[in-house]
Amino acid sequence: MSGTNSERELIAEGPAIILVEPQLGENIGMVARAMANFGLAELRLVSPRDGWPNEKARSAASKADHVIDGAVVFETLEDATRDLNFVYATTARERYGFKPVRSPVYAASTLREKFRAGEKTGILFGRERWGLSNEEVALADEIVTFPVNPAFASLNIAQAVLLMSYDWMKSGMDDIEETRFQPIEQRPSTKDQVFGMFEQIEEALDARGYFHPPEKKPKMIDNLRAVLSRRSFSEQEVSVFRGVIKSLDAFPRQWPRKTTPRQKKADVTEETEGNGGDE
Amino acid sequence: MSGTNSERELIAEGPAIILVEPQLGENIGMVARAMANFGLAELRLVSPRDGWPNEKARSAASKADHVIDGAVVFETLEDATRDLNFVYATTARERYGFKPVRSPVYAASTLREKFRAGEKTGILFGRERWGLSNEEVALADEIVTFPVNPAFASLNIAQAVLLMSYDWMKSGMDDIEETRFQPIEQRPSTKDQVFGMFEQIEEALDARGYFHPPEKKPKMIDNLRAVLSRRSFSEQEVSVFRGVIKSLDAFPRQWPRKTTPRQKKADVTEETEGNGGDE
Repeated sequence: MSGTNSERELIAEGPAIILVEPQLGENIGMVARAMANFGLAELRLVSPRDGWPNEKARSAASKADHVIDGAVVFETLEDATRDLNFVYATTARERYGFKPVRSPVYAASTLREKFRAGEKTGILFGRERWGLSNEEVALADEIVTFPVNPAFASLNIAQAVLLMSYDWMKSGMDDIEETRFQPIEQRPSTKDQVFGMFEQIEEALDARGYFHPPEKKPKMIDNLRAVLSRRSFSEQEVSVFRGVIKSLDAFPRQWPRKTTPRQKKADVTEETEGNGGDE
Repeated sequence: MSGTNSERELIAEGPAIILVEPQLGENIGMVARAMANFGLAELRLVSPRDGWPNEKARSAASKADHVIDGAVVFETLEDATRDLNFVYATTARERYGFKPVRSPVYAASTLREKFRAGEKTGILFGRERWGLSNEEVALADEIVTFPVNPAFASLNIAQAVLLMSYDWMKSGMDDIEETRFQPIEQRPSTKDQVFGMFEQIEEALDARGYFHPPEKKPKMIDNLRAVLSRRSFSEQEVSVFRGVIKSLDAFPRQWPRKTTPRQKKADVTEETEGNGGDE
């Protein structure tokens, strides 16, 4: 699940991630890694406990060096937000106040709008132990909170940053269901190709006495075709399927072999080589 | 950002998370924590390198004990998926094949549909070092991949599980923008309350000679009201605002004091006590 590629576009824009008094270097590093995955690059640290730079942060960042190298330290949260136009505070605890409370999806789309309008924005994340103080939340414009399991709300800061960064990335996609790569393109088969497959299968089955008793044959064909065509085939699939039938139909039709449920693999191999038939 | 509460509803349902040959106990623990946050509970481990149970996993799970205790170990991926109806494989690398490739949002909504229809589903996550083999991906029905930064795609398994679990949780919400708590409810003010505030401010400003020269007063009042009413006030806000004006207007109007930019705090205190005016 890992890999950087310098020939591909490095996305590095969007809101500043502001960590208030982060304690563990590992967490700062995981935050940087989370940001880089989803195209964020501006990391601000308010009074990190263990100082800065921090080697543990760099190593946990898993090569998100552009985020670590660009991180800026501030003494106070006010200093860290002076140049910003709009700031969200993240919190897991219910806060009593008048500030609007938003979901991450709503917040991400608001941040994207402001980004496109040229505003500078930021998202505040609190300390590992107890998050943001009420005074810190008061410095933000709005609150964002995650839709977690009511009985198990336990996101660490790197996880919270990952989720916000992810929703930020998605807010910039034209189609939220687009993916970076696609399956090999397949042309849908024509009905004629499907009919050809039906005929091949039915002829091979007929030769083996599958349609028994004969008066049930029309109904059995109906059922068989219904099963085979419940989902539409691609040309490639019709081709694979016809190859399978051809192979199964390759040995003599005249001497049906008596199969048993416990027949061994070795027998099957022999038979497909045309030697078998009756034991 | 942490806290469990046994009185609140513990959500524990949905697709099984299947880790194929996970190596580090810490990662298994972080996976359990990620799952618990978003209401998933069924963890399956295929040949975990360091055996099971694993104390490092339990400690990294941050009290997601119901997930750790319920984890089941399987020898093979086939065994781990036998009872399931539908399986996604997660991958960051492009795979060449016919399998549909989905975004996490699409996959989550598919899983939710199947869950509601009573199907059992699962999501496969590969090893830390190199993910899933092509043979393992082939056992799944569809592929899911994350919309990451093209030049920095580096999600570890716990992060990947966190994102899938998050989208799973969101797929079950009636409104993706709902939040677990809301700001204190505020009644919108009536126009009459706003007019009362305007009059109070304008009267206080008039007494201090703010509207100068007099012929500009109507235009200045227009501008002032435009600024004050750009966003609508709640009743509480009108009340807070009127209190502020009243307080600023509390000392004598007859002896305007000459303020200087460097005026000290002590002076202000004296004045609000009614002693000051001219220095």
